[in-house]
Amino acid sequence: MAGSGSAASPLARALLQQCLSARLQVKPPEPGSEARWVQIERGLIIYICFFKGTTEEIVPKMVNTLLNVKLSETEGGKYVSILDLPGSILIIPQATLGGKLKGRNMQYHANIEKERGNVLYSLLVTLCERELMANAKCSEAGVVLKHGTYGNRQVLKVDTNGPFTHMIEF
Amino acid sequence: MAGSGSAASPLARALLQQCLSARLQVKPPEPGSEARWVQIERGLIIYICFFKGTTEEIVPKMVNTLLNVKLSETEGGKYVSILDLPGSILIIPQATLGGKLKGRNMQYHANIEKERGNVLYSLLVTLCERELMANAKCSEAGVVLKHGTYGNRQVLKVDTNGPFTHMIEF
Repeated sequence: MAGSGSAASPLARALLQQCLSARLQVKPPEPGSEARWVQIERGLIIYICFFKGTTEEIVPKMVNTLLNVKLSETEGGKYVSILDLPGSILIIPQATLGGKLKGRNMQYHANIEKERGNVLYSLLVTLCERELMANAKCSEAGVVLKHGTYGNRQVLKVDTNGPFTHMIEF
Repeated sequence: MAGSGSAASPLARALLQQCLSARLQVKPPEPGSEARWVQIERGLIIYICFFKGTTEEIVPKMVNTLLNVKLSETEGGKYVSILDLPGSILIIPQATLGGKLKGRNMQYHANIEKERGNVLYSLLVTLCERELMANAKCSEAGVVLKHGTYGNRQVLKVDTNGPFTHMIEF
């Protein structure tokens, strides 16, 4: 009811940032065990948020777009896809991206339920991994895909030569 | 003509990320002179992009929202504004945020012209600085506002305890 043009509401939102390296905590420290981290070098950070009503159907299309959009700068100054660079990928679940301003607070009413979101997120990671592994250029270059744990705090350190932040909605 | 619901097109887009520290290059290295950097500690990174048709009128409203939205976590786990935290602010011009996917490329047709964008960006920085200086809590705590140079490559290093990425459109 409230809000403008719910017909145009996105089903998912992705935020892309280029990095020279990025390090993400995937398990917080606990008594007796240290935190666990994953790391990538030169590549692409993809923050992901799903909205209510999203189904598995959308995920292959998202993966195709995210891996093929030409946003990564070669040494020659040309822009190519992350598969063509080739570069590594760090996928981070980021539910806050679905927030909507209401007064001085953000509300997350449009966000997908947590369990459904985890299913879609896991599928997205799996399909991205599959594409990366099937790509000869990527395998030869030894680029990797790492990803955050859904529901965790995404403790993150990033080093960039310019994040060139882009948003893509689906 | 093309596109969905141009009536709902935003005039500006801001992306907010929390940081423990952030370091931004404001002057690239040149023969005979080193690069110049600015740095903040705990606080808020605000990426800014203006669209065509935006005027000065919108800027005070943006500043009010960005400085007062409750997205910064206190040590007690409560969410307060960056002014109430209080924390430092790093403002980064990020025209890429205005990109729109077309096939495998991003297009920036909706972005404001560079000179107009620089005027609005400078005004935004000035008004944010003014608010920060007028705020007793911020002055006492010695928090600072730093910002990137419009039109530069935004070489950035970030350390977070969770970016909690939010997008706000105006």
